[in-house]
Amino acid sequence: MSHPPLHSSMFIGVQGDGIISFGSGQPDLPPPKEVFSCLPTYHDFKYGPVQGSEKLRKALALEYRGFSHENFVITNGASEALDLTLRVIAKPGEKILLHVPYYYAYKPLVELNHYIPSLLPTHDGKIDFADFEKMVPDVKAVVINSPSNPTGRIQEIPTLKKIEKITDDLNIPLISDEVYKDLIYERENYMLHGRRVITVNSFSKTFAMCGFRVGYLFSTDKEIVDRAITLKTHTSMNTNILGQEMAYHATTAPKSFIESHLKIWKERRDFIYSEMVKMGLEVWKPEGAFYILPKIQNSEQFVWDMFQKHKVITYPGEWFGAPNRVRFSFALDIGKIEEGLERVEQYLKER
Amino acid sequence: MSHPPLHSSMFIGVQGDGIISFGSGQPDLPPPKEVFSCLPTYHDFKYGPVQGSEKLRKALALEYRGFSHENFVITNGASEALDLTLRVIAKPGEKILLHVPYYYAYKPLVELNHYIPSLLPTHDGKIDFADFEKMVPDVKAVVINSPSNPTGRIQEIPTLKKIEKITDDLNIPLISDEVYKDLIYERENYMLHGRRVITVNSFSKTFAMCGFRVGYLFSTDKEIVDRAITLKTHTSMNTNILGQEMAYHATTAPKSFIESHLKIWKERRDFIYSEMVKMGLEVWKPEGAFYILPKIQNSEQFVWDMFQKHKVITYPGEWFGAPNRVRFSFALDIGKIEEGLERVEQYLKER
Repeated sequence: MSHPPLHSSMFIGVQGDGIISFGSGQPDLPPPKEVFSCLPTYHDFKYGPVQGSEKLRKALALEYRGFSHENFVITNGASEALDLTLRVIAKPGEKILLHVPYYYAYKPLVELNHYIPSLLPTHDGKIDFADFEKMVPDVKAVVINSPSNPTGRIQEIPTLKKIEKITDDLNIPLISDEVYKDLIYERENYMLHGRRVITVNSFSKTFAMCGFRVGYLFSTDKEIVDRAITLKTHTSMNTNILGQEMAYHATTAPKSFIESHLKIWKERRDFIYSEMVKMGLEVWKPEGAFYILPKIQNSEQFVWDMFQKHKVITYPGEWFGAPNRVRFSFALDIGKIEEGLERVEQYLKER
Repeated sequence: MSHPPLHSSMFIGVQGDGIISFGSGQPDLPPPKEVFSCLPTYHDFKYGPVQGSEKLRKALALEYRGFSHENFVITNGASEALDLTLRVIAKPGEKILLHVPYYYAYKPLVELNHYIPSLLPTHDGKIDFADFEKMVPDVKAVVINSPSNPTGRIQEIPTLKKIEKITDDLNIPLISDEVYKDLIYERENYMLHGRRVITVNSFSKTFAMCGFRVGYLFSTDKEIVDRAITLKTHTSMNTNILGQEMAYHATTAPKSFIESHLKIWKERRDFIYSEMVKMGLEVWKPEGAFYILPKIQNSEQFVWDMFQKHKVITYPGEWFGAPNRVRFSFALDIGKIEEGLERVEQYLKER
């Protein structure tokens, strides 16, 4: 192959003249103004509780009825929430179930924690419960991500309910990555719940706060929550206190903030999906999140060429367990989506 | 024992009426005003580079001559810098050398990464190189912390130079935790250096920025730096962008900031040391950092009683590999140190 090994750290945060990035998955629209309102008078500087600001956890407990603020841990983004969770739920050599395509950090996170990923194929991004049922008795925990990064697909509610039941029967942790729960186009989000469900979420997507790295995990399984706190005491201590204060202020923004963003996301989703269909790409319709994963042959070469020659950033499907597909984030305005897709169409015609 | 299992998360961030905390190790004096000056006009919100802000890394490269900004990774405090480093330098079952007493997170960090701690006893907190030399051929990496938390002791320069040489000869990573490098009373700090040295530091102690969790690692061993970046991409992504901006502004503060703080730390060091000697406690004189570790029998019971009955927070030596000692941080003003020690003296007389 005529390209170097590709890694997301090559692209994250890359900006510049003429670059159109369908790369990193982050909102281009700014956070609610409430997020910045606390800055001018801020003066704290000491450690906060490792579990997270009580004020912020109480605000979250109001949002998620049935949970107390003691069920939450505030983390450095959903990434750390997932890493902490994985580190406390299994032993080296045990298996963790991931559905494929998966968020690109899942497999390395599972592997660097010395577990073995059990990869469940899906059909057009949807889990077939019969397949799941066969694989689950062999694993120590399950990770579900609906809406999914990178497919934009959601899992069917009856499937999710069956997954809740069987993992509960088997008494294994069910990790639910719901960072896109507020960005869903086809129905209300269904939040997985149960005795041993650990939910991972963040302020990054809903409130456009990616750079501030404020995420959280919550669970009624207090043992897992406590183990995560103990671990975090050693690995990073409290999440940045000012980031937490800003996140708290995000929770005070009017609900219309989320609704108005969702409208924009849906327009972009409709646009990029219909354009790709017109271009003749084989593609699944995104039902949530802001990703679309068309089939494109020699995808790593495509990604490298588009970046080097045409200043378009995309991510190769290989990172997500989906070779010969390419992930496009549509977190950019429609004019740029259009221009970027024109460059893609041109390139594909020529090669 | 008539106390519950003690854990630092019970004490970190605990404040309240009448509580005197010799507990968590954080400056009580505020950061330089430059740290807050960027807040009122701040408006960024997107992901930054995983390796860290280039501006901040360039400022650090100016401070540490001989290093390029490419040698640095900005992390969620020194804690994450150490965790990332440990995660990329060895394989499960391998041994990591720690000198005892050690910072309380070291042993759990080594163990939760599935390594085996090789514990090197010290003499009044000082490493005897003859002991080190016997143990080091058996380990995969070494962690040195001078000035030390919890002892306040520094390692002798000839010892440090011999440690540099032997780890270089053995070609093993030498992790140098220098978070107290600017808080040293008896001589200039000697920074460990070499081909495979990874230095860990933070803005927490020097600039009183504990709550913002901005630390860093740096090394001329580019392979380790790159592996740490790759790992961080999955475990937490960029460190909070605003925390990094504030840290950058800290680097612009006049050097007199550090000098004026050091003068205060030294007064407190002199005071608490002479008071403890007067109380008849067996104690090593702190040469750096802001901790003192007197011998106190039944130290966990002492810590529990002092917290519950006398509102004085201290940490049991057990956490640091030093049973029958108790760690006192002297990051509080002399009046409070005096009052706290009076409560301690009273308790010790009565028991």
